[in-house]
Amino acid sequence: MTTTSQIPAAREPALDDVRVAAKRLRGVVARTPLLYPATPGFPLAGRIILKPENLQVTGSFKPRGAYNKLAGLPEAERARGVVAFSSGNHAQGVAYAARLLGAPATIIMPTDAVPAKLAVTKMLGAEVIQVGTTSQERMEYGVALARETARALIPSYDDPMIVAGQGTIGLEILEDRPDVQAVVVPLGGGGMISGIALAIKSQRPDVRVIGVEPAGAADGQESLRTGRIATWEHPDTSADGLRATHLGDLPFALISRLVDDIVTVSEEEIRAAVLALNHGAKLVVEPSGAVAVAALMHDKTGVEGQRTVAVLSGGNIDPTLLARWLTSD
Amino acid sequence: MTTTSQIPAAREPALDDVRVAAKRLRGVVARTPLLYPATPGFPLAGRIILKPENLQVTGSFKPRGAYNKLAGLPEAERARGVVAFSSGNHAQGVAYAARLLGAPATIIMPTDAVPAKLAVTKMLGAEVIQVGTTSQERMEYGVALARETARALIPSYDDPMIVAGQGTIGLEILEDRPDVQAVVVPLGGGGMISGIALAIKSQRPDVRVIGVEPAGAADGQESLRTGRIATWEHPDTSADGLRATHLGDLPFALISRLVDDIVTVSEEEIRAAVLALNHGAKLVVEPSGAVAVAALMHDKTGVEGQRTVAVLSGGNIDPTLLARWLTSD
Repeated sequence: MTTTSQIPAAREPALDDVRVAAKRLRGVVARTPLLYPATPGFPLAGRIILKPENLQVTGSFKPRGAYNKLAGLPEAERARGVVAFSSGNHAQGVAYAARLLGAPATIIMPTDAVPAKLAVTKMLGAEVIQVGTTSQERMEYGVALARETARALIPSYDDPMIVAGQGTIGLEILEDRPDVQAVVVPLGGGGMISGIALAIKSQRPDVRVIGVEPAGAADGQESLRTGRIATWEHPDTSADGLRATHLGDLPFALISRLVDDIVTVSEEEIRAAVLALNHGAKLVVEPSGAVAVAALMHDKTGVEGQRTVAVLSGGNIDPTLLARWLTSD
Repeated sequence: MTTTSQIPAAREPALDDVRVAAKRLRGVVARTPLLYPATPGFPLAGRIILKPENLQVTGSFKPRGAYNKLAGLPEAERARGVVAFSSGNHAQGVAYAARLLGAPATIIMPTDAVPAKLAVTKMLGAEVIQVGTTSQERMEYGVALARETARALIPSYDDPMIVAGQGTIGLEILEDRPDVQAVVVPLGGGGMISGIALAIKSQRPDVRVIGVEPAGAADGQESLRTGRIATWEHPDTSADGLRATHLGDLPFALISRLVDDIVTVSEEEIRAAVLALNHGAKLVVEPSGAVAVAALMHDKTGVEGQRTVAVLSGGNIDPTLLARWLTSD
């Protein structure tokens, strides 16, 4: 039995890896613009800059890392196909990348997956297998399937190529606003923030990089404080993209060294941020995607008053949830 | 009693007026980016380009024309204050421009105005007077108030400075995509499309400019066909920004000469476009703002297959309506 990419390479990515990823991604994913919300109905009008990865292809930042990873696989390995497990955005990111590269993709999704996310993943040509409801069940199935079929498993964050791909967000922010003073980023498994911190701090150590987590899934904050990876077995938050039970090893190493602080937001603060972005910035943002704005709305980051970019990581909110929140005030 | 700007100047604006407006608007309104929606859930993914004026300050294109108009008033006249009547987006545009220019603004709004639109207009510092429920009642009150108090009335579309201001959208489209082949634009009173057509056709007569109206307010299409301004006394559409009963004289003159075609969309098509933009492009767009996309989704424009920009005119949708539509499928 061949072992493939199931064991994440331990090598840390460097700035050059992010630059290589940026070249690979040209024309493949959107070069999202910076936005300057200014409507008087938006509580942070004129005071923050948005990096709207909800406008990214597949509606989240995930295809950046997924495409970079798949493009970097040896061609013969890629041709055998790839396996991934995900409840949502990573599934779509891998399916998108696989389609562009002509690789068959099998995605393990939960039996209770949001219908829209299932449909879009299939629409992108991936084979979907629905297994259990927990990430543990999906992971076990995915790892076994990849091993048995000698296919590469595409991890969602604990991988240098994934981290380098997500880091292109940081490169773009610096290119568009070299005068940026702070970047505030949602934090789940840590793949996005570690890539962004790598891209930014390697060039501009003075720019502050702040992570934001739901209070109900604050393993990252605990990990940064205690100096070792904390596990939260039962994350409790509407931000389904940030429910990873613990940081990846590689993201944790980068975060420990490069991220200035990790702060938390409550469920009510997340809801208020989703609505503020909807009403005030005219953007559809999912709960996970709104946590950076939630933290800034409540002066939690310590960078208020600085030239700050808030990353919106995705927009794939369940329409039923959005409708409920829209009518809840 | 002084008569001020209540009678629209008859002079047609020229390309240079649009260029002057663009200089005035720099740093005052957003230079909205072009967006390339590509999520597989969006029916036109990869096939159209969006000009998202829903991301404009105040959530619609209106401050472009309003600021250009107010900035062009003699200072003494502006200092006396301005009057406007509007149920929504024009109110916010005038309030925004007046605040920036230090001019007192009085806006006549209907007694049944959407609470959010009322609140934002007041938040922008305007005095709001609520009168009746029809545009006729608002207009009569506004005209009389402007006359009695010797203040300038800021029309919402039938004015060369307003048209020139909205035309800056066309300049930006050509700057960003000199290879554009067609531009599809929502049409109400005609101020926006006539400005855009002026900016584009003066430079690139080969680019097609298509207007889109709700079938329940298709006075513009009738006007273009018959060669004279048609009046629809009872516009019937969810697209509240496109309920003008007839085109303005100045917009009609420009539209007759410069617009290639005007097509219509049904209420169901408008609803489907609002939802497609919400789910697929992650943008909050109001019914009026979605009609260009609605027409393209249903192959109504005759420019399908060409490099096409659809203008999204605004995003100020009533959250209750949006919630109802989100849960209606």
